[in-house]
Amino acid sequence: MSAYYTIAVDVMGGDFGPRITIPATIDALKRYPHLSVKLVGHQEAITPLLTQLSSEVACRLDVVHAAETISMCAKPSLTIRNGQESSMFKSLQLVADKQAQACVSAGNTGALMVLGRYILRTLPNVDRPAITSTVPTTDGHCHMLDLGANVDCSAEHLLQFAIMGSVMVQAVDGIAEPRVGLLNIGEEEVKGNEQVKLASRLIEEKGGLNYIGYIEGDDLYKGKADVVVCDGFVGNIALKSSEGLARLISHKFQSSFKKGLYRRVLALLASPILSEIKQQLDPSRRNGASLLGLQGIVIKSHGAANEQCFGYALDQAVAEVEQNLPSKICDEIEHKLA
Amino acid sequence: MSAYYTIAVDVMGGDFGPRITIPATIDALKRYPHLSVKLVGHQEAITPLLTQLSSEVACRLDVVHAAETISMCAKPSLTIRNGQESSMFKSLQLVADKQAQACVSAGNTGALMVLGRYILRTLPNVDRPAITSTVPTTDGHCHMLDLGANVDCSAEHLLQFAIMGSVMVQAVDGIAEPRVGLLNIGEEEVKGNEQVKLASRLIEEKGGLNYIGYIEGDDLYKGKADVVVCDGFVGNIALKSSEGLARLISHKFQSSFKKGLYRRVLALLASPILSEIKQQLDPSRRNGASLLGLQGIVIKSHGAANEQCFGYALDQAVAEVEQNLPSKICDEIEHKLA
Repeated sequence: MSAYYTIAVDVMGGDFGPRITIPATIDALKRYPHLSVKLVGHQEAITPLLTQLSSEVACRLDVVHAAETISMCAKPSLTIRNGQESSMFKSLQLVADKQAQACVSAGNTGALMVLGRYILRTLPNVDRPAITSTVPTTDGHCHMLDLGANVDCSAEHLLQFAIMGSVMVQAVDGIAEPRVGLLNIGEEEVKGNEQVKLASRLIEEKGGLNYIGYIEGDDLYKGKADVVVCDGFVGNIALKSSEGLARLISHKFQSSFKKGLYRRVLALLASPILSEIKQQLDPSRRNGASLLGLQGIVIKSHGAANEQCFGYALDQAVAEVEQNLPSKICDEIEHKLA
Repeated sequence: MSAYYTIAVDVMGGDFGPRITIPATIDALKRYPHLSVKLVGHQEAITPLLTQLSSEVACRLDVVHAAETISMCAKPSLTIRNGQESSMFKSLQLVADKQAQACVSAGNTGALMVLGRYILRTLPNVDRPAITSTVPTTDGHCHMLDLGANVDCSAEHLLQFAIMGSVMVQAVDGIAEPRVGLLNIGEEEVKGNEQVKLASRLIEEKGGLNYIGYIEGDDLYKGKADVVVCDGFVGNIALKSSEGLARLISHKFQSSFKKGLYRRVLALLASPILSEIKQQLDPSRRNGASLLGLQGIVIKSHGAANEQCFGYALDQAVAEVEQNLPSKICDEIEHKLA
């Protein structure tokens, strides 16, 4: 079977590197018969992990040697000059050179943003790319953007995020008219800072979207909107605070269920239910944040992703390739903002 | 026994009004022998609730008639002109007139901010008051400010919040050198928006505090800091998002434990543990947000507070009165910023 599309995988990124990213990629090749991949990283680290492959998989797999790896603590702005031999740089370059349709990396987020923007460039009429990911809701999930790529956003940027997020949900989730909400500290028209108030007017006037107005922090998880727009500073803090409280709850559970034999037995009996809930809410199950607004598909995996989670990031890349997402965003942004 | 200090209680505020606020206040009078209160509200709504009081309690209790009540949906800025006959306005006026040392209200937060600032004025060298409340941590709680009073803050405002929060924790929690953290999207010096970076330098140079630098959203609940400083937009969204996720977790629990008889029995057995955890994390147990930076003590109770929770807000007022918090803040701000 011949491959129809190619994904460049930065196999060196993340906390575990090739021993996680390569098995996950091989597994994806089995799941997607039309997929071929370029494994980008140090040849010596990759080759030992490519044994016992079926010829059907092996023929859709290519190694691109990169001598260096961008460390998780590298200063993003310096990677343009210093990172050219890195697996991340070369993975993105493959997308720019049209040798791959998407790039997936679990490496340094800041570096991926900076290099993504430098190598792939933003789409016409898009000032800045945004990071988007899903958050769980009562009956599914919603997409939130920006999650930290842009710490100071103008109202115009928020408008662009709203359009990009809406196109993404249409394409990937198949929702015809995604409900778009703007994160604010109240639902009333008078609430919020100047930037958010102005953004609300802009989205209403120019967005041509199913805009439902302001939504508050606690609405995020209620499923009121399919797309939630905010600046990267607020989005990052909202998401991380929530995760922090979830961890505190889990910690309180663990210590409460350890007080005495009766409680330990109860914990044992309840454990299948607890893991069921945990799985429903687990951020790693929603692994695969998209960098929207670039002239190419870039997916960021959690650095700590295990094999299964890295697989979800690959799934996201495949979904966006199949939908040709950047071209859809480009058309929509041009139609509305050019 | 003679009373040493007086609290003005806006009995009309909140979702339930006098039938919650008055029993809670009577209970506080029993707990605090040096407390006297002024019940501010409609005489006709108050009198029927003051039966069967012991003379020891009755003699420390005074009714101040106010014909009107500010509604929860009133536009805050209009209350200065239209709210002068309201229970909230009159409660604050009692503090301004030195007839009470603190005011407690469960009414409209925005109105309480606007009227508090108008009637009591800010302390010298304080540009804006801030709302502060506690959030639970692994081993206790921390104080967070601002939680929504100020949607656009300059670095100077954040510096003032840091000093005020630190003084409060010293006075009320008895911690000699509270650890002060600044909420940001990363811990590294380069991260964050311009306002936060500048605030960090200012706090370091002028704060004279035990400043521990940036803390991230997920650190909020880890107990890394005793005081967490942020602008009101970010603080409000961080807190509400967290509460939203906590509610989602609780919802998932309820539905997971209802699937079949076995799970229902398990839920019954585990219910004491679940309510124990819930109690530890319950925001209403931490009821009583302080408006810091005013020339007087103003405590905001949740609108939905029950009798016990409104009691916590009264406890907070008593603690701040006993410490003479505004004068301590005034001294410290003058010492550092004048």
